[in-house]
Amino acid sequence: MSIVLGPNQYGKAENRLVRIDRDPDGHRITDLNVSVALSGDMTDTHLTGANDKVLPTDTQKNTVFAFARDGIGEIESYALRLARHFVNSQPSIQRARVSVGQYPWTRLEVGGSPAHHSFARSGEGTRTTVVNYDGAQAWVVSGITDLIVLNSTGSEFWGYIKDGYTTLKETDDRILATAVDATWRHAAAEGTDWGKSYTTARQSLLEAFAETHSLSLQQTLYAMGERVLTNCPEIVEVRLSLPNKHHFLVDLAPFGLDNPNEVFHADDRPYGLIEGTVQRDDAPPAGLAWS
Amino acid sequence: MSIVLGPNQYGKAENRLVRIDRDPDGHRITDLNVSVALSGDMTDTHLTGANDKVLPTDTQKNTVFAFARDGIGEIESYALRLARHFVNSQPSIQRARVSVGQYPWTRLEVGGSPAHHSFARSGEGTRTTVVNYDGAQAWVVSGITDLIVLNSTGSEFWGYIKDGYTTLKETDDRILATAVDATWRHAAAEGTDWGKSYTTARQSLLEAFAETHSLSLQQTLYAMGERVLTNCPEIVEVRLSLPNKHHFLVDLAPFGLDNPNEVFHADDRPYGLIEGTVQRDDAPPAGLAWS
Amino acid sequence: MSIVLGPNQYGKAENRLVRIDRDPDGHRITDLNVSVALSGDMTDTHLTGANDKVLPTDTQKNTVFAFARDGIGEIESYALRLARHFVNSQPSIQRARVSVGQYPWTRLEVGGSPAHHSFARSGEGTRTTVVNYDGAQAWVVSGITDLIVLNSTGSEFWGYIKDGYTTLKETDDRILATAVDATWRHAAAEGTDWGKSYTTARQSLLEAFAETHSLSLQQTLYAMGERVLTNCPEIVEVRLSLPNKHHFLVDLAPFGLDNPNEVFHADDRPYGLIEGTVQRDDAPPAGLAWS
Amino acid sequence: MSIVLGPNQYGKAENRLVRIDRDPDGHRITDLNVSVALSGDMTDTHLTGANDKVLPTDTQKNTVFAFARDGIGEIESYALRLARHFVNSQPSIQRARVSVGQYPWTRLEVGGSPAHHSFARSGEGTRTTVVNYDGAQAWVVSGITDLIVLNSTGSEFWGYIKDGYTTLKETDDRILATAVDATWRHAAAEGTDWGKSYTTARQSLLEAFAETHSLSLQQTLYAMGERVLTNCPEIVEVRLSLPNKHHFLVDLAPFGLDNPNEVFHADDRPYGLIEGTVQRDDAPPAGLAWS
Repeated sequence: MSIVLGPNQYGKAENRLVRIDRDPDGHRITDLNVSVALSGDMTDTHLTGANDKVLPTDTQKNTVFAFARDGIGEIESYALRLARHFVNSQPSIQRARVSVGQYPWTRLEVGGSPAHHSFARSGEGTRTTVVNYDGAQAWVVSGITDLIVLNSTGSEFWGYIKDGYTTLKETDDRILATAVDATWRHAAAEGTDWGKSYTTARQSLLEAFAETHSLSLQQTLYAMGERVLTNCPEIVEVRLSLPNKHHFLVDLAPFGLDNPNEVFHADDRPYGLIEGTVQRDDAPPAGLAWS
Repeated sequence: MSIVLGPNQYGKAENRLVRIDRDPDGHRITDLNVSVALSGDMTDTHLTGANDKVLPTDTQKNTVFAFARDGIGEIESYALRLARHFVNSQPSIQRARVSVGQYPWTRLEVGGSPAHHSFARSGEGTRTTVVNYDGAQAWVVSGITDLIVLNSTGSEFWGYIKDGYTTLKETDDRILATAVDATWRHAAAEGTDWGKSYTTARQSLLEAFAETHSLSLQQTLYAMGERVLTNCPEIVEVRLSLPNKHHFLVDLAPFGLDNPNEVFHADDRPYGLIEGTVQRDDAPPAGLAWS
Repeated sequence: MSIVLGPNQYGKAENRLVRIDRDPDGHRITDLNVSVALSGDMTDTHLTGANDKVLPTDTQKNTVFAFARDGIGEIESYALRLARHFVNSQPSIQRARVSVGQYPWTRLEVGGSPAHHSFARSGEGTRTTVVNYDGAQAWVVSGITDLIVLNSTGSEFWGYIKDGYTTLKETDDRILATAVDATWRHAAAEGTDWGKSYTTARQSLLEAFAETHSLSLQQTLYAMGERVLTNCPEIVEVRLSLPNKHHFLVDLAPFGLDNPNEVFHADDRPYGLIEGTVQRDDAPPAGLAWS
Repeated sequence: MSIVLGPNQYGKAENRLVRIDRDPDGHRITDLNVSVALSGDMTDTHLTGANDKVLPTDTQKNTVFAFARDGIGEIESYALRLARHFVNSQPSIQRARVSVGQYPWTRLEVGGSPAHHSFARSGEGTRTTVVNYDGAQAWVVSGITDLIVLNSTGSEFWGYIKDGYTTLKETDDRILATAVDATWRHAAAEGTDWGKSYTTARQSLLEAFAETHSLSLQQTLYAMGERVLTNCPEIVEVRLSLPNKHHFLVDLAPFGLDNPNEVFHADDRPYGLIEGTVQRDDAPPAGLAWS
């Protein structure tokens, strides 16, 4: 028996890059959180500390900022450019993963007109991408996270297993609330209008959430993934992680009051967590897409 | 010399109350974080543990939920009802402070139409109020917090003191970004249209932020407070706490690139912190408003 | 009526300073979070943006680091040096407040011996100080925060007010847990052994918490403050903010099990919040100590 | 082409369980964060909302608390009991994953003696386990997270790749700090003294961190993993995720001061992130251990 090095990677995480496009008709802002992870022939640096095959994470950070000089574009394109650069420019780097989160901003209105260079950070979800590249092929996963949604009715939960630990009451009317964390795999790394794809996928998630009369959060999850695949032919797989943000009906009877599904306590922990994948049965192999 | 009890209070903090108004034409959601603090004749419970003058924080929590049964209305009104109830119903309670934060939600759109009962949590600031009541008078402070705004130009900083610890370069073009934490004191606890007042104050803050060509964040702070007072005659004092969320221009020269105010690093810590008050010179005494 | 500038201050917050004392017999680490707030004649910069009386927050940051060059010592001493420097070196600065948090680290043990230069961050409370200086007098407040403690028995709660919103059951055995946030005012800014004072005050809080059979968290609060004043003649006032971190006994009866105060659910929100002051009746005036 | 359900799971996350063992000689506290995830034949509930194969997450929560009634023991044993219960008691559940985090507490000392029932939460790392069970086999991963350590010298970084984006200076003396997130896979789910194994693994990580003169964080990572495997024959694989918590030497030269590796700025973001696996070359297959 001997002890050996297994899979490994290194990189600079959470580079907070903000780019201003100074269009005369109105500035535009791109606000990103960029993380890089590289892997390759790293045995020496682990065993002896030799660094001749290491591209310092400080250099990775510099590259992240320098590559924004001439424009960022869609985050998927930007991540692809970075990932290809790292692998193609250094023989010791065999794979690169670039992850990007994009925070949404809204242009302010002043006196009813859009402001020229003033913005407010809005909160309806962070757009994400993860690009992997191995020198030959690239994989693109896009997504959205921290998108908090709530249906105030149209959700039931009954007919479940009862055992010796069951105390939950069945209900035909509850609040259904979740913080959507969705990622979707693209069929190809080229030829996609990333911006349009994101907009369509995001709206598909929201509309399916709103339109599904839900008998379980799993049913809603599947409907959301199915809607994305139906509306976005360029997407082949959707992964959803949906915390069930519990809103418990408050018992007001001790105070002589009824509570016709109007007053709720929003609890923190514990929370349900429903996770699932919806995919095309003819999806190409995932390869390194999810690594 | 002897040891004595000084000022004290007790209460239940961060009650997460959600109310659904089930209007047939479309549900409405009110999402609150409610904190109560009471004070009065509490010497015994501190010195001997006697609790006969203590209204348990659990009971306070129940009251918060029960008082939502018949509707919440504007958070200032709801906080006033609660504060008056606690003081007026128990002889041992002489003062009550009720603090409320209201999280914003946006109605989803499905197929271009507003959804009936589906919402997304939005992020552009949390509306707040703090109400104090002493059995005779009530004071109402309203505000907004976590409102993150950014001007991508129109901000300068030069002409400041230089000493032996100065390294900062002067600039005539920088990003100015902050997370607005604003509170404002109302002249009276009655007769105000709280919803309209909030909307006007919030828009005043945003417009003054956007319209001020800024030579210092202090100048912007003053302009924001002044605008609120100008547009809202019912408000007599505005307090602002504005972190200077630094966006540092990245030096791309080592890579043979210029950087004409386009690529920035958004830093976390440290941050500047500018705090100030703007008030009417004939404002009534603040009394317990800020306690 | 006119609109005027009220109280204001500006500074650099959360400078994360780490100093290593490289003693041959073993390095020592000082890990601080330092915030500065200055005030003075700032009307011009608010009204016109003139900055000739502004010491930039960037310069304040540089000063924080430079003043650590020759050693930090106790955080109270360090904060006093900084506060006096700002006020005494600039005519436009009339008051300075310097706040410091010190994170605790423990020396690692290797093979049973203390390591020379290796440490682990420990978690039992952050030491704090806030120093105010107005050019003539200095005030020193010290404290501790994030000190989480729990008594698994020895706590009762009964005999409280019952009203129409009461549902809480009385108990003669509950868990009492809190995150101590304590601050204490010193009689003088000179002549105190800050390190010894801190150690004594901290231990006093812990021992009083452990030794008090508690009929209310208020009683425990008072005992903690009183113990500090008893053991520390140099301290004249103690302020305590004690969240009641609820541990609810889980009802296991539906599963055919009893629960003799053994299985609890640690809840997040809401929480009780008990705040109070314990002081000497002959304490000198607080002046700017708490500002 | 058709759309199909892929991998999925559901469960209750972050059950905050506290158990008190009321030993007459001194209470003991076990403070856990328990998450359950189940999977099985869930097609119906995703496609039609039928819940007859769903064990509600509320029931899972109840089970978590009920199973603590007669003692918890080591977290690995507790997680195994829970995982086996879920799979063995319900035909529709084919796999269970139970994750547990255990927060450390230290007994208080009062007057130099250990307190009977009083504790302080300490901060030197959270013990973790993840158990998977598929009805036939169980896999046990243990670990530690949030263990923050620092070497104030004994770390170099030089000899790395230079490219057009390099600005980092080489150094032969820097601070090396990280927040250890380590997990390790056990060879077997039975026959291990979990408590002793954890203590040995934890101390191995700390000693290897302290004793390794580091030429790269990768070298330190490997040494830490190797030390665990050397000292713990029951462990076959160690995974480490080590953020490089940068401490930047502050340039004091503009103020006429040198800085002989004494004054540092602890930065937040970005940070390096070094991840790697150290394993035995004859380790049994991982199976579901890491799922």
